Order: sequence, then C-alpha cells, then structure tokens
Amino acid sequence: MQHKSLKIKEMKLYIEYSNKDIPKSEDIKTLTAQALQAKQTIINRSGNGNDFLGWVDLPEQITTQELNDINSVAKTLRKKSDVFVVAGIGGSYLGARAVIEALKNNFDYALNTTPLVLYAGNTMCEDYLSDLMQVLDKRDYSLCVISKSGTTTETAVTFRILRNHLEQKYGKQEAKQRIVAITDKEKGILKNIADKEGYKTYVIPDNVGGRFSVLTPVGLLPIAVAGFDITTLINGARQMRNELINHDTSIALDYAINRKYFYNIGKQIELLVNYQPNLVYFNEWFKQLFGESEGKDNKGLFPASVSNTTDLHSMGQYIQQGKRLMFETVLHVENSNNHLSIPQQQDDDDKLNYLTNFSLTQINHKAEEGTRMAHLDGDVSQIQLSIDKLDEENLGALIYFFEFSCAISGYMLGINPFDQPGVEFYKKNMFALLGKK
Amino acid sequence: MQHKSLKIKEMKLYIEYSNKDIPKSEDIKTLTAQALQAKQTIINRSGNGNDFLGWVDLPEQITTQELNDINSVAKTLRKKSDVFVVAGIGGSYLGARAVIEALKNNFDYALNTTPLVLYAGNTMCEDYLSDLMQVLDKRDYSLCVISKSGTTTETAVTFRILRNHLEQKYGKQEAKQRIVAITDKEKGILKNIADKEGYKTYVIPDNVGGRFSVLTPVGLLPIAVAGFDITTLINGARQMRNELINHDTSIALDYAINRKYFYNIGKQIELLVNYQPNLVYFNEWFKQLFGESEGKDNKGLFPASVSNTTDLHSMGQYIQQGKRLMFETVLHVENSNNHLSIPQQQDDDDKLNYLTNFSLTQINHKAEEGTRMAHLDGDVSQIQLSIDKLDEENLGALIYFFEFSCAISGYMLGINPFDQPGVEFYKKNMFALLGKK
Repeated sequence: MQHKSLKIKEMKLYIEYSNKDIPKSEDIKTLTAQALQAKQTIINRSGNGNDFLGWVDLPEQITTQELNDINSVAKTLRKKSDVFVVAGIGGSYLGARAVIEALKNNFDYALNTTPLVLYAGNTMCEDYLSDLMQVLDKRDYSLCVISKSGTTTETAVTFRILRNHLEQKYGKQEAKQRIVAITDKEKGILKNIADKEGYKTYVIPDNVGGRFSVLTPVGLLPIAVAGFDITTLINGARQMRNELINHDTSIALDYAINRKYFYNIGKQIELLVNYQPNLVYFNEWFKQLFGESEGKDNKGLFPASVSNTTDLHSMGQYIQQGKRLMFETVLHVENSNNHLSIPQQQDDDDKLNYLTNFSLTQINHKAEEGTRMAHLDGDVSQIQLSIDKLDEENLGALIYFFEFSCAISGYMLGINPFDQPGVEFYKKNMFALLGKK
Repeated sequence: MQHKSLKIKEMKLYIEYSNKDIPKSEDIKTLTAQALQAKQTIINRSGNGNDFLGWVDLPEQITTQELNDINSVAKTLRKKSDVFVVAGIGGSYLGARAVIEALKNNFDYALNTTPLVLYAGNTMCEDYLSDLMQVLDKRDYSLCVISKSGTTTETAVTFRILRNHLEQKYGKQEAKQRIVAITDKEKGILKNIADKEGYKTYVIPDNVGGRFSVLTPVGLLPIAVAGFDITTLINGARQMRNELINHDTSIALDYAINRKYFYNIGKQIELLVNYQPNLVYFNEWFKQLFGESEGKDNKGLFPASVSNTTDLHSMGQYIQQGKRLMFETVLHVENSNNHLSIPQQQDDDDKLNYLTNFSLTQINHKAEEGTRMAHLDGDVSQIQLSIDKLDEENLGALIYFFEFSCAISGYMLGINPFDQPGVEFYKKNMFALLGKK
C-alpha cells in the first residue's frame, strides 16, 4: 500500500492493486516521468489550452477585498430571501452545488433554514420550472444568473421568465436589487442587460473554463449566500495549491499516474465512490470535470459514480461480478460532523446490541473496508483519497486537488484538457430545428 | 427506423443505428429467436431462478380488497403525518421513490404539501441520520420499515433508532399506530418484532426479489401515502403485461434484442437518458434492475444514466467524443403536466423572442432531437422509448416493460437474472470486521 501524506492536513492517497492489475515498476517509472512533464507543461503554460490556466492561481490571486465584497452582497441577499435561485448549467452551478450540498443539513428544506438554495436554468423541463414558479409565487426570493455569454438556452429562457416574475412581484426597482449577474467582464448579452438594468455583476474570468470556475464568484457567491465560509474554502485550496505546485511528489501526481496506468491496461470506467449522500453532487462535479476534460479524440475514462452503502444494494452486484471494466476512486471521510448513538435495546429483539459500541460512522467505515476487500477480490483496484472531515477547508483542498490532477491527466492523455468542442454539436442541431437565425 | 406501436397506449420504441453499428439481418434474426426462447422460458417457468417469477403475474393477482386495504392504511397515515419515512435499501425503496419523484411536484418540500416522503435506512451516514432526526423532532411523522429478513444493517439500525424515537415522542401505544412493517409473511427478525408489538404488516412475497417488488406493498404503500393512485398504476402494468405475454412481437422483445445486439458488437455501457429531472430516480431504479440482474459471471452492460439537457453540459462532451463505449436508451415523454409560457420581451434584449412561439417542452424536444442526431453522428446508437406523459398508468406500464425486458435480457445473456450473489461479499467482510457472531 502506497502512502503519501500532506503536511497541511490529514489528506492521504492510498493505492491498492488487484492481483491482476499489479504494475511493473517500469510502468510506474515511465508514467511518473510523463506526469512530471505534464506538471511542467501546466506551470510553464506551454500546453494545449494554456489560455485557460487561470484556475491555477485563483486561490492566490483573489483578494480580501473581493471576498469581503462577495460576503457583503451575500449578507444582503440572505436577509431579504427565503429562497435563493442559482440559474446556471454545467460548470455554472455544479461546483457551488457540490460544496453547498456537502456542507448543508441533508434536510434543510424541512427545517425552515433560510435561504433555501434552489437550482434552475439547468433544464428545459416545463414541469420543473412550473413547479419552481409555484414556490417563487409564495416565497421571497432573489436570483443569481450565471452565464459567460448569456446565450445558453436553458439559463437564458429561465432568466427571462424569472426576471419578468421578479419585476411583477416586487416592481422594477426592487427586482434590480434581487438580481446578481455573473458573466463576462465586458461583452455578451447578459453583460449588456446587466449594465442596462444596473444589476450587481461579478466577472467570470476569460482564462477560467466553466468546470474550473468554482473558486471564482461563480461558485463563491452562491456558497456565501448559503451561509458557508468562502475565505476558509479558498484557504484550503491555497494550501493544496502550494503543496502541489511546489513538490514533484504529491497525491495529485500519484493519482494521475495511477488512473493513467489503469487506463493503459484497459480499464474503461473510473467509479468515484463516496459513503455519504451529501457527496452525490461532488460526484457530479467530478464527472463533469474529468468527463469534459478527457472525453475527446475517442479517448478517456468514462466517469461514473456511486454513493454507498446505498448503491451497494443496486450497483454493487455489477461492480462485484459483472464485466471487469472499472477501478474505483473512493473518497473516504474520517470524521462525521454530528454524533448519534445507537440506543441499547433491553431484549435485543433486533439482534443489534453487538453494534451499540460503535458509532454509525465506525460501522460505515467497516462497510467501506469490507467493500474494499471484496472489490479487490473481484479484480476492482482501489484508489482511496482520505480526508479528515467535510468542511470548507477540506473541500477547497479537494477541489484544487481534483482540478490539478485533471489537468495533469489530460496532458498525459495527449489531449487539450480545457476545451469542449463536442458540447456544441447538439446545440447546433437544436438551433437549426428551432429556426434560430 | 423501426417502429412498433402498442394498442394500449402511445408507447413506442424506435431504434436508430449509427453507421458503424448497422446490424446484418441474420444477426437480428438469430437474436429474435433467442429472445422468443427467453420469453418462453419465463412463461414456462423453466429457467434459472424460476422461483422468483412472482412479479410476472402481480398485476393480475393483486385484488381490489388488497388495494383498498393499502389505500385505507395510507389515508390514516397521511392524516397524522407531516413526514412519512420510508426505511429500506435497494429494491426496498428505489421503486417507490422512482414513482413518487416522477409524479410529485419537484419542490413539494417548499410548498408545505404533506406528507413529505423522506428516505432512510439506505445509508450508514451519521450526518444523514442526525439531520433527519432534527426534522423528526419537530414534525409529526410515521414510518414504514421494509426488509424481508430484518437483518439488513442499514435498515435495521435506522429502525432501532426511529422506533425508539417514536416511542419517546408519542408513547408506546401511539408509536405502534405509526409503524408499518413490510416483511416476510412468517419468519425473520422484523416479522417477529412486528408480531410482538402488533404493528400493521404487509407481506413481501417469497417469489418476488427486491428489484422486482415495486408492484407489491413494498412500492404500493409509500406511493399511496404520497397521494398517488395505485389502482391506476397497477392497471398500467396489467395492460403492459397482457401486451407482452400475449404477443410474440413487442417493444420489450425489440428492446431486449437490440440491447443484446449492442452488447454482442462490443458496447460496454447502456446509458439511460431522460430529459426531465424528476426521472432521475427512475434512472436509479433502472440501474439496479439491470445492473443487479445482468452483472454477473463477468458479463453484462454497465448501466449508467444522464438527465438532460442538464448533463449535456457535464457528460455531453464525453458521450459525443470520448471513448466509443456506449449506446443510449432515451426515455421520451411527449407531454408535460404543466404549462408555462415564455413572455414576450419588448426590446428582445436577450434575443429570445424567436422562442416565444414554442413551449418549453417543445424546445426540450428539439434539444432531444438535436442530441439524437449529434450522437448518431458520434457513433452512439439510439434506442428511444416514447411515452405519452408521466402519470400512474404510464409508469405502471413502464415498470412492467422494463422488468419483462430485463428478464428476457438476462436469459439471453445466459445468466440467472433473479439472484445477486455478489451483494453478500462486502457484507460478509463487514460482519467479520464488526465482530458479529
């Protein structure tokens, strides 16, 4: 079992190969050289897509003044909103949602915590938006619309409907106080509307792609409105950045080396695995980050995910005994944020008294360990990324870790990790079918 | 484009092959013979796992009296509950959740609709259950616990905690009125507790496996408590059953034939695709049904899913241009249940006036059509299952359609579609690690 420890926190990476997957030392040696070269390509800004490396220095460049401004706007919006709508699609909402879901109460909507963050502009589903309007008719709300160009159909259509609704509900003046636009710094439809109407705006930097944008206002404003500490989030990312930039051995390099190794020996699928339901959207963020970065030129690992132990009772059978297509990357969280004990039952009628010495988290960890052993036996090699707990600092570090690993992985795969040409194909057809000029 | 129409409803199946995937006519002929043989194996109950074919006749066998009893119990529980907790894992909750999410308001939790259905017993996550207890401290609730044996750890631990909580909150007598157990007809830990305490019980039939159990009380009680019409659900399933059992050409056979064809030519992944967020749990139910049925003996398509257009902005790039691993099965819903129009904007500052003649659903369908064309160009063959709308009747028919197709697919693959031996492996390790005797 390999073991690399970060000084900055308890974050560690473990690799366990199934018997069939054990690498030769020269394989790892070759891949390590490639990974170091890829890292150098990032630092030297000499690779494909180097116009989109703005994410690398975000944690260092963002100023206290910028963070204060976001926090101050968030505070105002929180005061006047029962509901805060985030309107954006893909990288314009997934990062924020991943962080918010990981940190919030799993059932905040049933606890009258406000503001409740709801997501829109990420679907054309008529029932979804109709249902949302029922809520917005009844509740005080404000809105953040996130789009670089303002032309993304799902977000633009939703914004037209909500903007109209806000103006009817509150009048044009108050509506303007309830809308924030996060968009291009100078051009585009949304920027023009925002300037004309006088909305508060934040900038999506030109050199940061959507899936790498969570540490810009795209992610930071919604996270702050949800009540979480963006300064600590950035601080976690900054610590991870310093670790990864300044060292030639790191958990990010180890991760990139090993996932490329698994790809080279024929694995088709990387399964991101967690053991807690509030990480489901972190999985979704991961899937966009890696799928959109690597999935081109007929290359790349197919990113899939499960949330255990829930999904051990649905996808578990396939993973254990189906076609041998995958390895797993398990996100292990050492400590829970709450404590709940299992009560003693005098007559032990459910035969569970043997568990009352364990916390639920300890049982969950035994399930995780049992699964790791079972899957290794079933020829599913294991990468485990272990973190101390789910908080802003760890999430910031995790985000930077995966972004950096993803960029290295993309360069090792020989593709441009920062474009997404394939996303345009369906849009082009759709616009033709809709008769757009 | 093939085209088979059901008399009973507007449900249709379309197949479009990418240029690289076009079958030879003898391929389809051979597979058709295999599919008909598989169908006969089901009807004759002569195949592996034929002890678990109870699901085949469920829609015919359930009586009006049984449905009335479930509806009557559901009515009582609805009256006394702000929250209804469904405690079960895998097949013990996924079917109910798939139907409830497809039919309910997307934001019911923000509309004070009651009872709010919440899910537990499907995770060991300490934060999740702690968060749930905060809700249950404040709200009136009742509970349905679903487990054949009563020994499934996630569900049993949750049930101990909630049973204790209910007894402390309401006293032992009232707690008994708020608990329903769905379990074995005569034996097992949960059955024993229910008999001792005098809980209302429903039976999980011996010949119906978890993933095929949504049309038993396992699915029907939660669906009824959520306020939906289980008689119509069963009626939809019954119509589909009659169609599939009584004909030797059907959409289920076509579906099974084509997914086996794609498997034979080397596809690794079947992507279930929808275009509305309230079908995400239908995807999850599908993934268990097919993954757990087919994923054994190193065989089977890996079941994955996306919810578009949302995921076109995350997984879309990979599907369009990544490694060519998959075909898609698209669930097309022709009509929405709500209507919402796009307002005219006088100065057209967002350049969307060209869309105001379209409903959101029409735009969504153009996105779907544009995606189909793009993915065919990208060598991703398309199966499309088209339904009229999301209601109880169509969902009942869909459920039976997928169950029947899955059984045929399993027999065509040469495995037992009704067991899940691999699920035990992690449990065995876990129990050893926990020191269970």
